[in-house]
Amino acid sequence: MQEVGAAFVGHYYKMFDTNRASIRSLYQDNSMLTFEGEKFQGVEAISQKLNGLQFQTVEHEIVTSDYQPTNGGGILVFVCGHLKVDGSEHPMKFSQVFTLAPLPGGQGYYCFNDVFRLIYG
Amino acid sequence: MQEVGAAFVGHYYKMFDTNRASIRSLYQDNSMLTFEGEKFQGVEAISQKLNGLQFQTVEHEIVTSDYQPTNGGGILVFVCGHLKVDGSEHPMKFSQVFTLAPLPGGQGYYCFNDVFRLIYG
Repeated sequence: MQEVGAAFVGHYYKMFDTNRASIRSLYQDNSMLTFEGEKFQGVEAISQKLNGLQFQTVEHEIVTSDYQPTNGGGILVFVCGHLKVDGSEHPMKFSQVFTLAPLPGGQGYYCFNDVFRLIYG
Repeated sequence: MQEVGAAFVGHYYKMFDTNRASIRSLYQDNSMLTFEGEKFQGVEAISQKLNGLQFQTVEHEIVTSDYQPTNGGGILVFVCGHLKVDGSEHPMKFSQVFTLAPLPGGQGYYCFNDVFRLIYG
């Protein structure tokens, strides 16, 4: 559970930072994203939002990551960290939670819930 | 869903800040808490941890709260905010995620997952 969660976190942010277009492969049509309070559902809407974010480059640095099993047979993933956009010297703090749900075929997991917030101040 | 989540958030932090001993009523024996990386399971262990925290008074201020349905028939609740302990003038930032699961009898929800982190820096 912890191993799967940690592997997901490594994979997700590496993909986000180096090949954002491919991140759509981690979502399904019942996936939900709440990004800074704005809600999206499904691969297309989520992928469009994430790929439309207004920066050229982004670097996530993970500070803490916590994992728990969910009551739906999935994994709760909770990440706190910093991110730098377009090489800025001023990292922003963020906090993000995912639940990973088993893929229909039983091979691996996908993002069912995804909620992202910047932490200001 | 949003209404239930928001009512839970109001209830949880009011209880935490004014009558911490009673917070045990929001957990069941399969509930999990990860508090600053330390793991607890079940009403007794969770209640003991929360009631043993080394401050006399605490005040939570909610800055953002987000809600999504989970794939287990519950509600994902994601909170970012500030807290002040013992009347300090220096609030600390925190971020906390819950999943609420339906109570066995079908009347209401309890905390199944609970992960808490202070945000430093």
